[in-house]
Amino acid sequence: MPTGKYIVIVGCGRLGAHLANHLSRDGHSVVAIDTDERAFGNLSPEYSGFKVEGDATELAVLQQAKADKADLVIATTRDDNVNLMVAQVAKAQFEVPRVLARVFEPRREAIYRRLGVETICPTSVAAELFLKSVSKEGSA
Amino acid sequence: MPTGKYIVIVGCGRLGAHLANHLSRDGHSVVAIDTDERAFGNLSPEYSGFKVEGDATELAVLQQAKADKADLVIATTRDDNVNLMVAQVAKAQFEVPRVLARVFEPRREAIYRRLGVETICPTSVAAELFLKSVSKEGSA
Repeated sequence: MPTGKYIVIVGCGRLGAHLANHLSRDGHSVVAIDTDERAFGNLSPEYSGFKVEGDATELAVLQQAKADKADLVIATTRDDNVNLMVAQVAKAQFEVPRVLARVFEPRREAIYRRLGVETICPTSVAAELFLKSVSKEGSA
Repeated sequence: MPTGKYIVIVGCGRLGAHLANHLSRDGHSVVAIDTDERAFGNLSPEYSGFKVEGDATELAVLQQAKADKADLVIATTRDDNVNLMVAQVAKAQFEVPRVLARVFEPRREAIYRRLGVETICPTSVAAELFLKSVSKEGSA
């Protein structure tokens, strides 16, 4: 994987922190944003990126995270509305070339696509794995 | 996929309901359990299984769902502790041949494995997909 991207990760819960740790280790410049300072406790001691405490739906916070310089913004919070708003602002206001968002409600994925935002729906992915697992063993 | 299994699904949120709808459509006998009656609104009109309102960590509720006859129990709630307790009871008390559980905290997966419970961690799965997606496009 080519390194050296500037990546802003919104939400530093389990998913966001996992991505931040991994991408930072891979040599990317990472900024993790969370409204709750304690969330940064999810980051590994080796995490070498920045931390910004604040609400990423506020322009000033994304500005502080230098979203205008970002190659990639990843919205990972547990709130679909927050992720959608962050994705919209990242695209429209900061012209971020690439935006990925976690989406809980699969029906919302169409809205994101219209905005040019790529989405990943953990529920759908987990559902697929469960169904694959159920069918795997045949009739019990 | 062979049909005709008796499947108890604990938690009828997005994931649980998706599984219930799908497995019911595939010809399995499905029972969906949730503490909140409104969760059953997630089931499709075509869902032909049963609904049990109650707390599946209570023996009586799993009994009502005929967990003793189940080929498979799937614990899908948003609470790792609930899923773990349901999985334990399904295994130990009702001798369910196969138990699958959703786990949010990947570090807990070892506990489940010791109990013979298969786990799926949506966070880990989503993280993998995000990382694959990030590396896909190369340097932006």
